[in-house]
Amino acid sequence: MNRPLALFFDMFGTVVDWRGSIGRAMHARFGEGVDGEAFADAWRAEYQPAMQRVRSGGRGFVKLDVLHRENLDRILPRFGLDHLGEAERAELTLLWHRLDAWPEAGLALRRLGVKYLLAPMSNGNIALMVGMARHNHFHWDAILGAEIARDYKPKAGVYLAGCAALDLAPGQCMMVAAHSDDLVAARAAGLMTAHVARPDEFGPGKGEAAPSAPVDVAARDLDHLAEVLGC
Amino acid sequence: MNRPLALFFDMFGTVVDWRGSIGRAMHARFGEGVDGEAFADAWRAEYQPAMQRVRSGGRGFVKLDVLHRENLDRILPRFGLDHLGEAERAELTLLWHRLDAWPEAGLALRRLGVKYLLAPMSNGNIALMVGMARHNHFHWDAILGAEIARDYKPKAGVYLAGCAALDLAPGQCMMVAAHSDDLVAARAAGLMTAHVARPDEFGPGKGEAAPSAPVDVAARDLDHLAEVLGC
Repeated sequence: MNRPLALFFDMFGTVVDWRGSIGRAMHARFGEGVDGEAFADAWRAEYQPAMQRVRSGGRGFVKLDVLHRENLDRILPRFGLDHLGEAERAELTLLWHRLDAWPEAGLALRRLGVKYLLAPMSNGNIALMVGMARHNHFHWDAILGAEIARDYKPKAGVYLAGCAALDLAPGQCMMVAAHSDDLVAARAAGLMTAHVARPDEFGPGKGEAAPSAPVDVAARDLDHLAEVLGC
Repeated sequence: MNRPLALFFDMFGTVVDWRGSIGRAMHARFGEGVDGEAFADAWRAEYQPAMQRVRSGGRGFVKLDVLHRENLDRILPRFGLDHLGEAERAELTLLWHRLDAWPEAGLALRRLGVKYLLAPMSNGNIALMVGMARHNHFHWDAILGAEIARDYKPKAGVYLAGCAALDLAPGQCMMVAAHSDDLVAARAAGLMTAHVARPDEFGPGKGEAAPSAPVDVAARDLDHLAEVLGC
């Protein structure tokens, strides 16, 4: 296998545990009154439909923070939380900036960073990625992804804008994700691809334990990816 | 003085010594045959006019790497180097990716980064900033500047695009530069400003030892700035 020069990371689910993090934060704030993981699942369920309106051209580009906030407003009544005011809603939206990394991810990224350029290739906006990096001590070479491209993955232009920003050809870049659909799209755009197993992303046993499409690397976790990539 | 949340850095001359670095590299490559610092000065003299065509709308946005290359082609004959081929010209253009930091800059940025978000706010493109950061071990929270805004400083939109990317108001951001004109423009856009003295930027005694316009902080160097900002 040729080695890439840069690694692009999907973040939600691949590098950070959005479901566990949102679940824990909701539990800490509302106690037994709210099922934190059900809340996380409901919030995340609004994610793709909200982006789809931007991808389809039905709506101009808005940052994921804006979509997260709109989606929050939509689900709060279902959890008996429609009494929350503006300040509390704004604060809850920022939970996505402070998601915790999967246990091995932080140090694995340090290993990978010795040999490769590293950048998030997420649908999260720049401020969200900056907050998440500070929270987890990630060091990125640049923050690429949806906000740079002003569109959402899996549109090819998002991956390609990232390659262009680093002056690299798509074939010199590797997309790393726990989601086969993300990797299928990146591969179609010419990038190398690495799947990372996150079998519990959506709850125990409810995640991709293996890719469902051809990839260049299928890794057990980011430490394994570092090993495969010679770090 | 209110404290900012983010610090934006001019890079060429403020954080890195472009003249000394280009001069040393030219000397290392061509020996006594080329006056490295005169070459650096000539290359840099083409910088503002090239950007001005983009700023004025006379030309669509192109990355600084492209302008550096065009400017190189323009000056090579003056130094008896018009025999250089495509590969050598491409390689020389990348010298701007490997400029050395002023002596105190690297550690001062680490100090500043403990309390503040840090980003380059340079006319250099993303790949150039990524290379410069790797060369000098800078850790940025994000790479902002001309390529994000698709225009060149001192146009107000460049500073404002950086603030918006971090979801900050201009008054929560501080522009740090060794050039008063950069700071005047940033201040007009609503940012706080810090001047850093680089009295030898353009050769001994040929740099700004002090700001020529009002600023929030006038610092002797980036260590002094860290001290003033409570780091």
